[in-house]
Amino acid sequence: MQVRLEKLSSWIKQESIDAAFLTSTANVFYLSGFLCHPHERLLGLFVFPEAEPLLICPQMEVKQAKDAGWSYQILGYDDTQNPWEMIRDALIFRQIHPDGVRTLAVEKDHLSYRRAELLMSIFPDVRLVSAEEKMHQLRMIKDAQEIGIMREAARLADYGVEVGISALKEGVTETEVVAAIEMALKQKGIQGMAFSTMVLFGEKSGLPHGIPGNHRLQEGDLVLFDLGVVLEGYCSDITRTVAYRSVGEQQREIYETVLQAQLNALGKCKPGTPIGELDKTARDVIEKAGYGNHFPHRLGHGLGIEVHEYPSLTETNMDPLQPGMAITVEPGIYVEGVGGVRIEDDVIITEEGCEILTGFSKELRIVG
Amino acid sequence: MQVRLEKLSSWIKQESIDAAFLTSTANVFYLSGFLCHPHERLLGLFVFPEAEPLLICPQMEVKQAKDAGWSYQILGYDDTQNPWEMIRDALIFRQIHPDGVRTLAVEKDHLSYRRAELLMSIFPDVRLVSAEEKMHQLRMIKDAQEIGIMREAARLADYGVEVGISALKEGVTETEVVAAIEMALKQKGIQGMAFSTMVLFGEKSGLPHGIPGNHRLQEGDLVLFDLGVVLEGYCSDITRTVAYRSVGEQQREIYETVLQAQLNALGKCKPGTPIGELDKTARDVIEKAGYGNHFPHRLGHGLGIEVHEYPSLTETNMDPLQPGMAITVEPGIYVEGVGGVRIEDDVIITEEGCEILTGFSKELRIVG
Repeated sequence: MQVRLEKLSSWIKQESIDAAFLTSTANVFYLSGFLCHPHERLLGLFVFPEAEPLLICPQMEVKQAKDAGWSYQILGYDDTQNPWEMIRDALIFRQIHPDGVRTLAVEKDHLSYRRAELLMSIFPDVRLVSAEEKMHQLRMIKDAQEIGIMREAARLADYGVEVGISALKEGVTETEVVAAIEMALKQKGIQGMAFSTMVLFGEKSGLPHGIPGNHRLQEGDLVLFDLGVVLEGYCSDITRTVAYRSVGEQQREIYETVLQAQLNALGKCKPGTPIGELDKTARDVIEKAGYGNHFPHRLGHGLGIEVHEYPSLTETNMDPLQPGMAITVEPGIYVEGVGGVRIEDDVIITEEGCEILTGFSKELRIVG
Repeated sequence: MQVRLEKLSSWIKQESIDAAFLTSTANVFYLSGFLCHPHERLLGLFVFPEAEPLLICPQMEVKQAKDAGWSYQILGYDDTQNPWEMIRDALIFRQIHPDGVRTLAVEKDHLSYRRAELLMSIFPDVRLVSAEEKMHQLRMIKDAQEIGIMREAARLADYGVEVGISALKEGVTETEVVAAIEMALKQKGIQGMAFSTMVLFGEKSGLPHGIPGNHRLQEGDLVLFDLGVVLEGYCSDITRTVAYRSVGEQQREIYETVLQAQLNALGKCKPGTPIGELDKTARDVIEKAGYGNHFPHRLGHGLGIEVHEYPSLTETNMDPLQPGMAITVEPGIYVEGVGGVRIEDDVIITEEGCEILTGFSKELRIVG
């Protein structure tokens, strides 16, 4: 955490900003190690160019913040106190900013207009600038501790697919398989699923945004699993597709095309590759096979504290891959009436190339 | 929806506001019937004093909006278009507001500072006022259609408790019972759970904010279920507590005290009762029994599109109950080392008194 706080603090100094005020659960967790869902109450972290950082949270959360390792100042408030006045007093009267705060970096997408008004009422001349781009940049490059947790989270995603495949039997419904997967993972002690688990059978696998329902499994169905867990604050995200009992010719063709597209894109995962080249590499394979119109989404996304982070793996993103980036690589082909295939791995860019965190096998499996 | 739009429109006229711009999923759904989770994209509904309302949503959602019954204008935008420019053009060039918008009612707690800046950039002299209090007021009083849906949602919550009780057996874990409940309810076609299902055994039931884990059921445990579903956009929320195989003397005393507190509060559920009197009525029973320090939360909350709405059932809320209000009544006693009991019903205030939507029996049950 110390290194992360120092990087943000250096940026603040360099940009001549008086302070940063982070309010989202994800950014406060990233900088403090303290994971807090305060609902409608205020959670905030002030970072300064010189002074010690300052955490503001409900009084009943103060102990958890300390237990999470936060050793700097904490302003705890109860429901009878006004946290905004406490902030003003702490910053002005404790002389962190005796002249008031004139430039404050905030999460403009997260901070509500109501809270912006409150900030402007306690710091009348304040100008709010965006802290978001800097936070995206910092969070995009994972450190060894983060990678260690994400490795574990990916193993649990592998296990979720294994449980899902074991639950496949004639007549089972999509929601029953979802329940089996989630129960097994909860028993492994995860914090929760990273997103709504997707298990889609047959034609429904051909809908990129299908929702599991009471559809029953039958021979010849493709089965698409897309799932991930949250472990110690970090997400995993895997997709695998298998065939139940038998596989049609076109289903096999789609599968092999997606797999080739994914492998080719993974082959380019190393520092320096323009990010858009990954998408283009996978898209080329799919277009050559005649399925260009059936791959309607980007190749992938960054992964970490949130399931969708930076960078975005779109064809037009020309930023280079850098060591420490955590991304998903997930091409897909969806054909109405036939079904869909998507194959997704979680990947860390290393100094030399990449480490693929998800390990579940990718050859076409006919199960049951 | 028509009546709801007209009520908001009258308020706008009366307050001399140029327009209201609602952006939360819940308020847009309430006013349009269109349930949309646009993630980071913009969803918005303009309501005017005179002109037709105007919905803004991603192009790919336009069909769903129409299918949901929205018959007024829709601005659909794709990812290459700037919805803010489209709004400006629609309002100014289509002469809804040829002079620009000078006073705009927004959801200050929901609207991000980024979006507020964008609104101020397209309407340079705009003053943002709060639409939230008015929306709370409107949504607090349910109409017959809403009550009909909430009745069904409450029946499914009853069913969830029934499933949970059936799943109790020596050695079962809390998370296994949660999974059984959620699977059974998903098979009934709910949209989702209204919140994380709570099943707590034994001493853990004594933690008002406990989280289900791998704790195993044993004889003499109190078992606390707190769950609810989302059905057609509306939430239910029930709590029941049962004893597994046997019940201790103090557990029984706690149970009977909570039940009496709940029944006394329900007895006051009729138009005109100051809301705080419900909390006070329940709290009096609990205090007289010597457990005043073991009831650390308010008596209940409003219920509807969101699981926590207005009114808030705190002792200090002196607003009167009104016909059409939907509330929960949920006193509890939590004793460390012994366990906890909470009993919660969903209640609609009627012209004469109230209708209790949740019907699961409340006498102390010793199961297994």
